Amino acid sequence: MNTATSETVLTDGDVAELGQQLRVDAVRAAAAAGSGHPTSSMSAADLVAVLLARHLRYAFDQPEHPGNDHLIFSKGHASPLLYAAYTAAGAITEEELLTTYRKLGSRLEGHPTPKLPWVDVATGSLGQGLPIGVGVALAGKRLDHLPYRTWVLCGDSELAEGSVWEAFEQAGTEGLDNLTVIIDVNRLGQRGPTRHGWDLDAYARRIRAFGWHTVPIDGHDIDAVDEAMTAARTTRGAPTAIIARTRKGKGVAAVEDREGMHGKPVPDPDEAVRELGGVRHIRIEVGRPPAAERSAHGGDPTAALPVYDLGDKVATRAAFGEALTVTGTRREDVVVLDGEVGDSTKAEVFAKEHPERYIECYIAEQQLIGTAVGVGVCGWQPYAGTFAAFLTRAHDFLRMAAISRSDLNVFGSHAGVSIGEDGPSQMALEDIAMMRALHGSTVLYPCDANQTAKLVPAMADRAGITYLRTTRGDTPVIYGPDEKFPIGGSRVLRSGPDDQVTLIGAGVTVHQALAAADRLAEEGIRARVIDLYSVKPVDAATLRQAAEATGRFVTVEDHHPEGGLADAVLESFGNGHPMPLLTRLAVHSVPGSATPDEQLHAAGIDAAAIAAAARALVGR
Amino acid sequence: MNTATSETVLTDGDVAELGQQLRVDAVRAAAAAGSGHPTSSMSAADLVAVLLARHLRYAFDQPEHPGNDHLIFSKGHASPLLYAAYTAAGAITEEELLTTYRKLGSRLEGHPTPKLPWVDVATGSLGQGLPIGVGVALAGKRLDHLPYRTWVLCGDSELAEGSVWEAFEQAGTEGLDNLTVIIDVNRLGQRGPTRHGWDLDAYARRIRAFGWHTVPIDGHDIDAVDEAMTAARTTRGAPTAIIARTRKGKGVAAVEDREGMHGKPVPDPDEAVRELGGVRHIRIEVGRPPAAERSAHGGDPTAALPVYDLGDKVATRAAFGEALTVTGTRREDVVVLDGEVGDSTKAEVFAKEHPERYIECYIAEQQLIGTAVGVGVCGWQPYAGTFAAFLTRAHDFLRMAAISRSDLNVFGSHAGVSIGEDGPSQMALEDIAMMRALHGSTVLYPCDANQTAKLVPAMADRAGITYLRTTRGDTPVIYGPDEKFPIGGSRVLRSGPDDQVTLIGAGVTVHQALAAADRLAEEGIRARVIDLYSVKPVDAATLRQAAEATGRFVTVEDHHPEGGLADAVLESFGNGHPMPLLTRLAVHSVPGSATPDEQLHAAGIDAAAIAAAARALVGR
Repeated sequence: MNTATSETVLTDGDVAELGQQLRVDAVRAAAAAGSGHPTSSMSAADLVAVLLARHLRYAFDQPEHPGNDHLIFSKGHASPLLYAAYTAAGAITEEELLTTYRKLGSRLEGHPTPKLPWVDVATGSLGQGLPIGVGVALAGKRLDHLPYRTWVLCGDSELAEGSVWEAFEQAGTEGLDNLTVIIDVNRLGQRGPTRHGWDLDAYARRIRAFGWHTVPIDGHDIDAVDEAMTAARTTRGAPTAIIARTRKGKGVAAVEDREGMHGKPVPDPDEAVRELGGVRHIRIEVGRPPAAERSAHGGDPTAALPVYDLGDKVATRAAFGEALTVTGTRREDVVVLDGEVGDSTKAEVFAKEHPERYIECYIAEQQLIGTAVGVGVCGWQPYAGTFAAFLTRAHDFLRMAAISRSDLNVFGSHAGVSIGEDGPSQMALEDIAMMRALHGSTVLYPCDANQTAKLVPAMADRAGITYLRTTRGDTPVIYGPDEKFPIGGSRVLRSGPDDQVTLIGAGVTVHQALAAADRLAEEGIRARVIDLYSVKPVDAATLRQAAEATGRFVTVEDHHPEGGLADAVLESFGNGHPMPLLTRLAVHSVPGSATPDEQLHAAGIDAAAIAAAARALVGR
Repeated sequence: MNTATSETVLTDGDVAELGQQLRVDAVRAAAAAGSGHPTSSMSAADLVAVLLARHLRYAFDQPEHPGNDHLIFSKGHASPLLYAAYTAAGAITEEELLTTYRKLGSRLEGHPTPKLPWVDVATGSLGQGLPIGVGVALAGKRLDHLPYRTWVLCGDSELAEGSVWEAFEQAGTEGLDNLTVIIDVNRLGQRGPTRHGWDLDAYARRIRAFGWHTVPIDGHDIDAVDEAMTAARTTRGAPTAIIARTRKGKGVAAVEDREGMHGKPVPDPDEAVRELGGVRHIRIEVGRPPAAERSAHGGDPTAALPVYDLGDKVATRAAFGEALTVTGTRREDVVVLDGEVGDSTKAEVFAKEHPERYIECYIAEQQLIGTAVGVGVCGWQPYAGTFAAFLTRAHDFLRMAAISRSDLNVFGSHAGVSIGEDGPSQMALEDIAMMRALHGSTVLYPCDANQTAKLVPAMADRAGITYLRTTRGDTPVIYGPDEKFPIGGSRVLRSGPDDQVTLIGAGVTVHQALAAADRLAEEGIRARVIDLYSVKPVDAATLRQAAEATGRFVTVEDHHPEGGLADAVLESFGNGHPMPLLTRLAVHSVPGSATPDEQLHAAGIDAAAIAAAARALVGR
């Protein structure tokens, strides 16, 4: 057998042969690379062989086909198996597999990334494939009504991750019967035996309790695997978990079911290939997807953003909610995801207008971002958010989303000490540092309602992860509704030819800086004031100009001193640009409870503190 | 009844009265503060009344008593209930409750923190109390063999958090029968109904599947609550979950079981108090703890740290594992916690020598940090770690640990692009930004084995969160074994009176900086080289001296450009200290797979890139 098509009836023996080929190719790829995870590939080879030969529907020549199934290797370290499967499917050549895997410049990386057109998302941080798969399945079932299935291959070790149980919960209660997780229970983690070993029922009991259909099987019994996948495809009303007992390193005695064989080539690859029956060149024609069309996303681009009157006091979170709703009217590809705090973030306003595009993820921030990434894979434009402080819960998901080059809009409310009485657990004081350090991210922090309204739709036009930080309390409207706020820009709110010092804030501290400038003016000190609403990318030209003109900066931020606004400002002064004298005001302590004004004062980021810092800088 | 003691037999009616008092006091406290969560307190009032009157054993006058039970309010927003309970127990006065709650400077914060001597850890980020409670219970059962019980009060909404399921898993498989979770199923989250409403069995099925004993009850039936708590205390071999059906706002018609009443005072507090039967002044004498003694932690302080020979090549992670083991010999209070990667981080070396103080948390990083915080509460000195990249998974736990002022040692291996072929999912490129922004944290990043060995025991003497970043690959030993590396210091590795530029690295980039300095020297350019192994706190004096002497800095870090080494360096130049010209070299792209050397080169952080940056800065 050299080529088999989905038309051909493949015998169990044919499929077993394909499984052996996947093992052989995984062994060869890792051996050629000198590193990799062949044993974790070998345990799942029969599972993938059956999937590929009999159940997956995927046009490798049309990776954008909306009817394509989705295959997510949550156990991304089994990349040799994935790439061996691509080889068997004719998507890549054996030569590419054997000469480029894990090499500089290769698209066949140690863990899969979307550099490959058939890979939806980067994996390798365990426990993320299923949460994202839930998003993909949800998009298919609830948003797009498309006939594809989502298949997620998980390891057993990663079931220790809480994020996986957030996913089981969401998929179970949403009844995602278009989702199948295949769990490769090979008993051995990286360091040694897993918690539950081969106790399939330990997994089945837990997963069943979350509303899933569970099918425990011998993962090396082709017929049993086939039956389980058929059951998964035909079960209605619940997602299916195939819980497969397998042997790590299956088929090669030197490594099979042995500890200490994780994450390295097999000791004698030639002998291993012989033991596995030698090299094969089977090519499978994977089943074609059904005809399908992705939803056309219309919308009314003329829908007007909310406008706010100068001098009114409006919370930026309120303006965010209203602008988000209009953005959803303008663009029908916008989906909003909430962590059960939509009444606080004001995402709830969107829910009332566009309930069909609002996904409640409850208090499960990893799943919140996972679902967002998943619907993004399917061409939707996700806005996902919660209290900014609790976005830290999803840091690793955001990190991986950056590696996946996901286009993701994230909002976080209740930033900083200015929230007041609720205390430090609810205050985001590290979020700007977290968000800035993500590759390719954008960080926005508006100070008034009209500015917020302009930035919200702009987020969707921005590639990568775009973060908007909002404030709980009301702040005065200082900009007219027709002003423009390009990402990467800033606003100079006060300036004159003989400014002595520049005060730089964003969000709530802009208003404190303005008040400080007023006080300083009364004392004859001329202060420039910059609203740095685009924290990343930062408006280097304006900052450099201010440094040249005034030589002295006071930065003021409702954030811990590290990684926030001040650091963003200083990024403009590398590579030969002389730096200004700088005083950085930030939250240096752990706050307690107090009113918003008391908090700003206690943290030393209010107008009085800014004025004092400016005086000291100019020698007064 | 004004005072009841544990000797007194309290009737169910007495306890019900106490429950009403807790409600009344919660209502009054929130009304006086003008904010807070009375309705979330009222649902759990009977649960807490029974616990306080009949089951808790706690000497409020001796919060350090090793026999004291631990009571963790995971639903920290129910702080009015907790403080009302303290009032009933005589630990605080009614006056303090009614005049200071949520006010500036008060220890009665919006969410509980250890400013109160009876509070183990700060809560308010949901889903953290149970994971930490697991650590506390584990310490009692496995490390200290103390007779206390750990009681955790959870809300129903927070069961959506995956971290809670990591905790159920660890507690269930460890058989922590000294742990009880009381789940206040009041059906209403912040935004609206929870996923499972009053379906107690939905919770019971799931929790039972994780190996727990479950007791569903009516949470307002004093007798049923009492029986459930008795069952929890007497069940052997498994932890108990009391799943209590309750009504949010119970007892006040205007708010009882109504949506939109979360997180605000009741509309008419006086009427509510009347409806609840008026103000009471019941004082309970809570049961005393049994006599108990905490383990004395000995150790051999003379145990010698490992030493490495100059010029040998040793991975800092290897030196870390060996030094950690000796630290555990020196100090028997050291406990090591692993995220199932101890063979990679080398924490496993400790496991071989001190298995009784090694806790395997499997791939569940939130629980890893939660357990560490919990054993820390009990006086142990935790070292917890995994791949540095995966610590982002526990960001919110670290954030809350900082608010709790936990003394926590964290290690992260496989930092940066220098890991090589495994690719970006395994590379920590954001960890320094994350760790620096935590309040009161320390960030260490050693470059050689002897330096690492010295820093590992020093971590335990440091307050707050102390983070050590290690490197996967071997690096040359450049320091002798007798050199000292104080936290907050740095090492000037090359310097002369007429240095033209300063090269600053840490960890793997120190070696690149040294190589660059050699090349530059051949070209007649004199470069100072600083090893900034203490990234936070940073050695401002040495950096300022170098800035004065050379005026030009090249910083080089195996990390994204934001929030890392360069930003740490620039912190030394606030408040009037003139800044040097700076070129920052960092990882600006998403890396792929490649060898470590290729990675350093591709990212532009190798010796060649450093030398080129230095040349440009000095105008050559």
